Amino acid sequence: MQAQNRGEPPASRGDRVHPFLEVIYHVRGDARGIAGRAAAIAVEQSVEMPVAAIDDAFVRGEIVGEVTGIVPKGADLFEVRIRLAGETVAGDAGQLVNMLFGNTSLHPDVALHDVELPPALVAGFGGPRHGVEGLRARVGAAARALTCSALKPQGLPAARLAELAARLAQGGIDYVKDDHALADQAYAPFAERVAAVAAALRGSATHYVPSLSGDLDSMRRQIEIARNAGLDTVMAAPMIAGLANFHRLTRENPDVAFLAHPTLAGAAMAPPLLFGKIFRMLGADAVIFPNHGGRFGYSVETCRDIAATALAPWHGLRRAVPVPAGGMSQARVPEMLDFYGVDIMLLIGGALLETGPRLAAATAGFVREVRSFRAGRGEAS
Amino acid sequence: MQAQNRGEPPASRGDRVHPFLEVIYHVRGDARGIAGRAAAIAVEQSVEMPVAAIDDAFVRGEIVGEVTGIVPKGADLFEVRIRLAGETVAGDAGQLVNMLFGNTSLHPDVALHDVELPPALVAGFGGPRHGVEGLRARVGAAARALTCSALKPQGLPAARLAELAARLAQGGIDYVKDDHALADQAYAPFAERVAAVAAALRGSATHYVPSLSGDLDSMRRQIEIARNAGLDTVMAAPMIAGLANFHRLTRENPDVAFLAHPTLAGAAMAPPLLFGKIFRMLGADAVIFPNHGGRFGYSVETCRDIAATALAPWHGLRRAVPVPAGGMSQARVPEMLDFYGVDIMLLIGGALLETGPRLAAATAGFVREVRSFRAGRGEAS
Repeated sequence: MQAQNRGEPPASRGDRVHPFLEVIYHVRGDARGIAGRAAAIAVEQSVEMPVAAIDDAFVRGEIVGEVTGIVPKGADLFEVRIRLAGETVAGDAGQLVNMLFGNTSLHPDVALHDVELPPALVAGFGGPRHGVEGLRARVGAAARALTCSALKPQGLPAARLAELAARLAQGGIDYVKDDHALADQAYAPFAERVAAVAAALRGSATHYVPSLSGDLDSMRRQIEIARNAGLDTVMAAPMIAGLANFHRLTRENPDVAFLAHPTLAGAAMAPPLLFGKIFRMLGADAVIFPNHGGRFGYSVETCRDIAATALAPWHGLRRAVPVPAGGMSQARVPEMLDFYGVDIMLLIGGALLETGPRLAAATAGFVREVRSFRAGRGEAS
Repeated sequence: MQAQNRGEPPASRGDRVHPFLEVIYHVRGDARGIAGRAAAIAVEQSVEMPVAAIDDAFVRGEIVGEVTGIVPKGADLFEVRIRLAGETVAGDAGQLVNMLFGNTSLHPDVALHDVELPPALVAGFGGPRHGVEGLRARVGAAARALTCSALKPQGLPAARLAELAARLAQGGIDYVKDDHALADQAYAPFAERVAAVAAALRGSATHYVPSLSGDLDSMRRQIEIARNAGLDTVMAAPMIAGLANFHRLTRENPDVAFLAHPTLAGAAMAPPLLFGKIFRMLGADAVIFPNHGGRFGYSVETCRDIAATALAPWHGLRRAVPVPAGGMSQARVPEMLDFYGVDIMLLIGGALLETGPRLAAATAGFVREVRSFRAGRGEAS
């Protein structure tokens, strides 16, 4: 099936010379209109002009998007496959998402479901530097699930956040990350916060993971501040930073591990693709996402797919640690470990923080639960 | 109404000391659940933890989001107003969108509709450097609508794009922008493209507007290349670049005018807010958006609101030029000028390019149509 509708045989452009992206969209519409809609998406995401007006053979043969499949998926829902040329991406993560979903994101009837990428493109982006093994090694963990909590609420001064971190460390937690709403606010500026929390955790096995914010220069300065304070792991929000900037940071800082936060990711790009493939490919060592049954509406199946995708063998990239979160509690730990296995980081924020004066003890209980699960079930250590 | 539900009187936190953001969401749900849903959004977008567990008076009084209004807007649709503290933004455009919509963007039942911002925050971001008057002055236009076309398809070599630009210039067009899919691809690298197109337009009144791509460093290099080629206007995609990086570029380059492209803006942030307020506030001199009746589904009302918002007096910012686009043609020019008035840039891409050998003449027809409208109707000159 052709992007344009000019009566040519379906196979006429089937053999592309260059590597291509095969993009899978989920499109809402009726059966009569879907072929036209698919063709329109193929044009919108490639040449964005009337195909009949293109006289260049290379553009017609290689660059114009090509509809390669339309499969009904349910009532008024279709899976549409579109082939795009790999050269259009130019090795740039921002341009990648522009090609995959840029203008089409403005259409409420289309969701970006998945993509097959040329192996050289994936390898060129490089993926996690540290991944599952690196994040375990940082905290001296064997093959068990990692534990994590969050510093919040924003509005507390740096000293108060450092106190919370100290109590979480006292409970033996592996990682303490900033809430993603902690930026460079006056009430706990980044430099002051990093200094205070790093000092509070010095000598403990707990790793502090500050959240980066601002433009690329600002994030670079913040990484330098973190490194100078002895930290080796940071968090960033790729959809706010811009994917190309997130990628630049992971490449520039091979010694630093990156947790990717899902904020601003929206609902129209499939989370397994965005977190498990794209964020991972750009260098995320761990990907935070909302677990099912918490404060967000992700389904059991979506969560299983995110974790499976982040951990799957994929063009030789390291595995990124799935971090299901968003309203979790200690009571859910056994169920989550049954569901996800131990190649995971368990993140409990509010449910620990609300224990107030019992924070260290509650944290220790969470940590024990995670470690004893491994021992109890005879999981790999 | 409180973010938390602990039986306190509604007015108990009504008097905030610091300036605040009043964020307006459109939330789908039923009447019985809306109060709880609104309270949950207020918490998610501020402290992201159980409010009962917060013992700090400043955080409880200033930082916790507060639901200030819930108004039914239709069947299962509510307008929810939430007040957030201005300090949370820290003057950072990335953090602004994180506070407005970050985690809540993951919920498919919520759209970000609008926001009232503290005047000092808006003024601090600074807005357009050039705006309506500056983009007119660049091309020596009186108070008439501006004309624009696009170089595409991607895949053409730089020399072919330069030929197209030359013919558009021959037709007397004001601005020729890159298609937003033109990045730094091998078939027409940015530097080569800028050199070729700038050379082709030298001596004409037409201004070339290359599209920036990549990370912040890459975009800076591209601006330098453009400036060295004698150009003074560029295009960028704020949602792909990252809002903080887009803002950094407009502040660093006061001599350069910026067209903002809507790619990757999605459907869950109201376009009048995103384009007319946020992009403008961050320094966009012109905002491109899909006009009604073209390839995209924006309504007549949405388009009117985008243009009105971009041009409205707002905390002393310059006006940004509305650029309705996406499948326009010369036939629609009179109707669009009737609808939008002359403080506008008319962008016709594909419909001009498909005239092939008649491109210069077709462009001249478009330009004449725009200029004669002004004369014919006695609009301000």
